[in-house]
Amino acid sequence: MGTLVLLRHGQSEWNAKDLFTGWVDVPLSAQGEEEALRGGDLLSAAGLLPDIVHTSVLRRAISTANITLDACDRHWIPVRRDWRLNERHYGALQGKDKRQIRQEYGDEQFMAWRRSYDTPPPPIDPGSEYSQEGDPRYAALGEVPRTECLADVVARMLPYWEEAIVPDVRAGGVVLLAAHGNSLRALVKHLDGISDADIAGLNIPTGIPLRYDLDEDLRPVNPGGTYLDPEAAAEAIQAVAAQGR
Amino acid sequence: MGTLVLLRHGQSEWNAKDLFTGWVDVPLSAQGEEEALRGGDLLSAAGLLPDIVHTSVLRRAISTANITLDACDRHWIPVRRDWRLNERHYGALQGKDKRQIRQEYGDEQFMAWRRSYDTPPPPIDPGSEYSQEGDPRYAALGEVPRTECLADVVARMLPYWEEAIVPDVRAGGVVLLAAHGNSLRALVKHLDGISDADIAGLNIPTGIPLRYDLDEDLRPVNPGGTYLDPEAAAEAIQAVAAQGR
Repeated sequence: MGTLVLLRHGQSEWNAKDLFTGWVDVPLSAQGEEEALRGGDLLSAAGLLPDIVHTSVLRRAISTANITLDACDRHWIPVRRDWRLNERHYGALQGKDKRQIRQEYGDEQFMAWRRSYDTPPPPIDPGSEYSQEGDPRYAALGEVPRTECLADVVARMLPYWEEAIVPDVRAGGVVLLAAHGNSLRALVKHLDGISDADIAGLNIPTGIPLRYDLDEDLRPVNPGGTYLDPEAAAEAIQAVAAQGR
Repeated sequence: MGTLVLLRHGQSEWNAKDLFTGWVDVPLSAQGEEEALRGGDLLSAAGLLPDIVHTSVLRRAISTANITLDACDRHWIPVRRDWRLNERHYGALQGKDKRQIRQEYGDEQFMAWRRSYDTPPPPIDPGSEYSQEGDPRYAALGEVPRTECLADVVARMLPYWEEAIVPDVRAGGVVLLAAHGNSLRALVKHLDGISDADIAGLNIPTGIPLRYDLDEDLRPVNPGGTYLDPEAAAEAIQAVAAQGR
């Protein structure tokens, strides 16, 4: 019925430094810009040209969308941005070195914070330089999140999926979502019906468009989706899993 | 009541070569990117932070908006794009060298095509490499324009102004329009009540935000608007007037 293309932003400056980022608004690294460009080339080569794009309100997803769409000559399509596509809020871990946290708290706690479905990291202090307290882009929310687990991301992302994205999918075009590791994992969990336990093992690589063709019940015709560059995706998934080692 | 900020895109690759561009979708030059960056710095310094942005569907205006908004940390605001904010369609002149056209047709004809209110250039051949025939971004129009005079731009731009931009101005925020020499001249003509004859003498420089504060009747509190860098604007206006010489 409609086609969804998921695109995780390219490498950010903090991905490059192996820091927890979450809602901190870090720009793409030069490598991240290259990845976004290549994402556009992959879309062009596949003839999979987006008719509309949804992004988070974070720079690394917005820049990825801008670069990718420019590269496939679709810079002019309608855009929607929403905080509900943001990365998971990493709480007090935001701005912290992943390796250091792993050493300090041990493997088990580290993996629980990174991958468990319902254990959020400790909340960030609203006075922290990495808190989003007072950021005008979240003014309408009333209260800004101070931490989130993946279940929290699912809870905020799914209403946006239903209200804003599903109507575009039903309109029959190609809908691009330029977003983040955890907001995309939350959506894939929903689309593929992955359990709370199994979602821990799912990694989505950066910069490689992941195509889902959806039927009238919004179920994937191709469960798990199809990466436009399956070999590069397999390699990149390994690299994501190795973070903090 | 509300504030409007007009921003003409920075130098494009064809501006640099002194070619007629119109609806041909040329990218910014490196200088144009610098101008867009500086536009964002001017907005930051003035504390004039856009709440929403409207662009044309042409790359040079879209990239200008992206760069400018990123520079003033407003990359996350809502975006609307519409062909009715496009540059004037330059007809058969698209892709032609301005100096050459001036030499071939003489000063009077050259200035009539560039600046008269109601004399369009000859229509472009739909088979020309610089025609927009078949471009998917104009599919909903039915027929793609083959040439336009400034009066045609006013006629297509004003309905978009009324329908899409005025509600945002009435909402009381700062509304950024990232567009083109002639779509912005068409709007300024309307806002300032400039006659068909006098609009010929009005040039808008690239990359320098032009602020209009509008009262409840949408009349400028500051007629003619206020450039955020008036000295640079005055110099740039001279440079625009000298094109094709």
